[in-house]
Amino acid sequence: MTMHEAAQQSVPDSAPSSTPSTAPSSTGTGYPTPAWRKAYRSGSRPDLRVPYREVQLSNGRTVPLYDTSGPYTDPAYVADVRRGLPPLREGWISQRGDVEEYHGREGRPEDDGLKHTSPRGGLANLDAVFPGRPRRPRRGRDGAPVTQLAYARRGTVTAEMEFAALREGMDPEVVRAEIAAGRAVLPVNVNHPEVEPMLIGSRFLVKINANIGNSAVTSSIEEEVEKMSWATRWGADTVMDLSTGRNIHTTREWILRNSPVPIGTVPLYQALEKVDGKAEELSWEVYRDTVIEQCEQGVDYMTVHAGVLLRYVPLTARRKTGIVSRGGSIMAAWCLAHHQENFLYTNFEELCDILRAYDVTYSLGDGLRPGSIADANDEAQFAELTTLGELGRIARSRDVQVMIEGPGHVPMHKIKENMDLQKEICDEAPFYTLGPLTTDVAPGYDHITSGIGAAMIAWWGTAMLCYVTPKEHLGLPNRDDVKTGVITYKIAAHAADLAKGHPSAQDWDDALSDARFEFRWEDQFNLALDPETAREFHDETLPAEPAKTAHFCSMCGPKFCSMKISRTIAERFGGEMGLNSDDDVEAGMRAKSAEFAASGNRVYLSLAD
Amino acid sequence: MTMHEAAQQSVPDSAPSSTPSTAPSSTGTGYPTPAWRKAYRSGSRPDLRVPYREVQLSNGRTVPLYDTSGPYTDPAYVADVRRGLPPLREGWISQRGDVEEYHGREGRPEDDGLKHTSPRGGLANLDAVFPGRPRRPRRGRDGAPVTQLAYARRGTVTAEMEFAALREGMDPEVVRAEIAAGRAVLPVNVNHPEVEPMLIGSRFLVKINANIGNSAVTSSIEEEVEKMSWATRWGADTVMDLSTGRNIHTTREWILRNSPVPIGTVPLYQALEKVDGKAEELSWEVYRDTVIEQCEQGVDYMTVHAGVLLRYVPLTARRKTGIVSRGGSIMAAWCLAHHQENFLYTNFEELCDILRAYDVTYSLGDGLRPGSIADANDEAQFAELTTLGELGRIARSRDVQVMIEGPGHVPMHKIKENMDLQKEICDEAPFYTLGPLTTDVAPGYDHITSGIGAAMIAWWGTAMLCYVTPKEHLGLPNRDDVKTGVITYKIAAHAADLAKGHPSAQDWDDALSDARFEFRWEDQFNLALDPETAREFHDETLPAEPAKTAHFCSMCGPKFCSMKISRTIAERFGGEMGLNSDDDVEAGMRAKSAEFAASGNRVYLSLAD
Repeated sequence: MTMHEAAQQSVPDSAPSSTPSTAPSSTGTGYPTPAWRKAYRSGSRPDLRVPYREVQLSNGRTVPLYDTSGPYTDPAYVADVRRGLPPLREGWISQRGDVEEYHGREGRPEDDGLKHTSPRGGLANLDAVFPGRPRRPRRGRDGAPVTQLAYARRGTVTAEMEFAALREGMDPEVVRAEIAAGRAVLPVNVNHPEVEPMLIGSRFLVKINANIGNSAVTSSIEEEVEKMSWATRWGADTVMDLSTGRNIHTTREWILRNSPVPIGTVPLYQALEKVDGKAEELSWEVYRDTVIEQCEQGVDYMTVHAGVLLRYVPLTARRKTGIVSRGGSIMAAWCLAHHQENFLYTNFEELCDILRAYDVTYSLGDGLRPGSIADANDEAQFAELTTLGELGRIARSRDVQVMIEGPGHVPMHKIKENMDLQKEICDEAPFYTLGPLTTDVAPGYDHITSGIGAAMIAWWGTAMLCYVTPKEHLGLPNRDDVKTGVITYKIAAHAADLAKGHPSAQDWDDALSDARFEFRWEDQFNLALDPETAREFHDETLPAEPAKTAHFCSMCGPKFCSMKISRTIAERFGGEMGLNSDDDVEAGMRAKSAEFAASGNRVYLSLAD
Repeated sequence: MTMHEAAQQSVPDSAPSSTPSTAPSSTGTGYPTPAWRKAYRSGSRPDLRVPYREVQLSNGRTVPLYDTSGPYTDPAYVADVRRGLPPLREGWISQRGDVEEYHGREGRPEDDGLKHTSPRGGLANLDAVFPGRPRRPRRGRDGAPVTQLAYARRGTVTAEMEFAALREGMDPEVVRAEIAAGRAVLPVNVNHPEVEPMLIGSRFLVKINANIGNSAVTSSIEEEVEKMSWATRWGADTVMDLSTGRNIHTTREWILRNSPVPIGTVPLYQALEKVDGKAEELSWEVYRDTVIEQCEQGVDYMTVHAGVLLRYVPLTARRKTGIVSRGGSIMAAWCLAHHQENFLYTNFEELCDILRAYDVTYSLGDGLRPGSIADANDEAQFAELTTLGELGRIARSRDVQVMIEGPGHVPMHKIKENMDLQKEICDEAPFYTLGPLTTDVAPGYDHITSGIGAAMIAWWGTAMLCYVTPKEHLGLPNRDDVKTGVITYKIAAHAADLAKGHPSAQDWDDALSDARFEFRWEDQFNLALDPETAREFHDETLPAEPAKTAHFCSMCGPKFCSMKISRTIAERFGGEMGLNSDDDVEAGMRAKSAEFAASGNRVYLSLAD
């Protein structure tokens, strides 16, 4: 079971939790070090300013890094969770002239998991839910396809594409072509104008997703908004809101209005709430209604378990761990109860036409993914993958963007087969995997068991990695677990970017290695994925301020330092001598040998130096 | 810089720290859960009892796991750090009749890093150092090769080979053949009779090493002994003692007498201490004397940086991070100072003859390993590897066991080249790598950046992984860091065992997955690499005792559970029906569909059930 299946505990039937009235606490705002500065690149139009993070080094240089933290880390921005983020894309959407506002679906108490007889009454307009920006939902006018895929196919480089291209340091035309080919997605619902456009595709930087979601234990709307901004502060590229139970609609509204990253959901979870948790009472009508509700709110991508076909269910019977996907098991239960084909599959074309009107991206769920090493790459898993490939083609034929979800639990030697088959069967649609975990024997450390698999599968082509926290299989992640999960997955993603040879990836490693070699300790901390932890670990051994500028570190101490010797070698034989042949080197060595002796053979640092 | 370069801080010139007088504290003894029980397999002779760990499951089954914790976890054993462990191999060594006791090297104050004029006087006999078992050192009689390699080549399956084979569940003859071919080593100094024999070779379980070593900050002998037993308790297969500074000889003696795992060292570190940290004052004579000192104590393997040749030093001049190996930089400094070839290289054959007399295994150090992503797989690194291959052939020709050390910092796409070249150049001698780290940007998380690379390179053939702790590059690891490093590397090693298809590897994952599927929470915890953490994480969300036997977990809660649905499916379509064709499955589904409805479509658990 995974965080996809999170937080289904029932909540006492009390009033909805109070509306948050303050900005997210300081944990969600500001960078973890003053050496990180928010900066912007300008695009082709005044309202196109692409944020990035600039790391200020002590030698006056700066290092630009991709940034997911949104306006919260801009000191010029005053956060107000009740007003939401500025609608960055407002002009881009309206100027295309292909959307219409309309009187949306009427809100109902059960949208928030309340009884029909709840005293709260209807959620007739969003004012009741989100005070900051009451508005009517938008959709494609007269069924116009308003998807980035449709634009890309027409040859249009949208502002969103340009924005995302600038973030990646890529040519916007390459971005357009990758989207048009279905090899990348740019998830941006027309009702989520706050989102900073980003790309998911194997030619681009590997992205990571963090799951959040309320639960009986820790649920308040404010906390969920803070979890979202906490995750994006450390580098989450998208966030999935897997909330269940009470206040599900309202929580989602607050998250969307305050999220600078695309928000994904699993509509099936909310639909199940509406039928009181009875899978057999689900229907296409309840599901469709829920999808429309979420489209109107601005969800950017949705996990849809349309590949769990009736005939595949028995294939799981002899598995070691059966069906571990919550969505997969819900649909399997429905299929068994009715002995009918999965209603998501039989109504898939209609579903495409709904998503197309809002530009919601499919994340075709792998409901039959393996839940143990023993079940990896089995018949059930690959049968479903074949269906996901078929569904992906249908979706793209209707101009809907598509990514494909993947496992799960897979031993290292079976990972590449997953990637290769997915590429072949799913026409290189972006792969979005959960890990995979490379062994089952380390509950409590599944961020690591899965980080190994995640790095490998991303190197081989997976476009986005769904994080796994240390609490996987055991409980609900807290703040520290979310951070650990995000950092672990940023490591996996970046290791894959290096291995794939992404043009900008190695500059970061080089900057940090330079700082290390030159004993610029503060720069090392500030270039780290997590400067707070790096600084804290260093200070445990050598807390004094002078140690951070000293030419030694705690491993070798002041007396002997291998880095110092290397620098001596570099000075003796390096570029200054213009060495370009072995003979030069030999000559150089002899020449410098005398100098070395003359200097008293001093290659060590000591405190007296 | 790495823990290979650990702990070179100078210590105030005070009296040696007090002799420990108690057993290691409870942290080093006992298993972390009462469900782990020490058990033994019998071999072909009464004094050959091979320990393993038996996990007791709640369903009455047991799962046998490899165990590195030594007698400390046997409740029948009374630990006394002053007496040391029982000399398990005593009879095996003496009965071979090829060793002699002799009057060993005279101890000197500088062996413990003390001034020649120190009031402490000589360490004339080991009584002064280790009270529990004064004895004279042993060596091969009249230069007889007493190495496992020599025995294996003669066709002898030694007791050590049988012991190690039983631990692995392998045929002893396979073990002998792998050792004879130089593809595996069994590091067992004749002066370390306490060691439980183990194998390092690509056909066997992947092993991990943990580094310890005293330092100015935390050094007491007792603490070092406790660190050793703490590391082996969590699964360290060998321990390297990288102590420097004061009490280096005495600390090592206590570690050896109390260590059930092979102990490795870098003799160069102690030799450098003897010349007051001045690399240019090192000499073959000082080094040789140090090696003999350590051979007589019982060190099982030694890192020797004999591949850092004079002509390779300039190849590092244009590197991003030069030479990061401490041993490598010491030898580079010596070569530069004298403009002479590395004395470890020029005296290599004599060194072989010393090690052979004690059965000390070479770990040929990669002094020029890369210290950054930028420097991976460069000319300097592979030039040294070629020399390590040459040295390995010389060593084996003189009946000395050899393993080869490897990097370091390597991006994922360059890892396999390291393994393939090493196999080719070094005749498949066991590879022993440090990570490698797959990115430089995450100081504070280098157990993870390196755990990724470690798992991959072990899958491809690396026999032993040197752990990296979260403090790598930042400071000295504490107890928690050592545990985190060991667990992370056990994950990497086990993931590789699974991927390599080691016969016993998947049984463990299967047992844990079965427990997960059957909601046997206690069994899940007890089968985990770290039961303490797994239990603690679970209890944070659902602390009540009944939750540990409940058929649901905190992710889905009591209302809906995907595992429960899967079990329903398994019951409907599984083995009970004797399904063996698709037709049967379809028939079964139809038959069971009615039942499902008749049961009220109840597939969810609720607290009311």
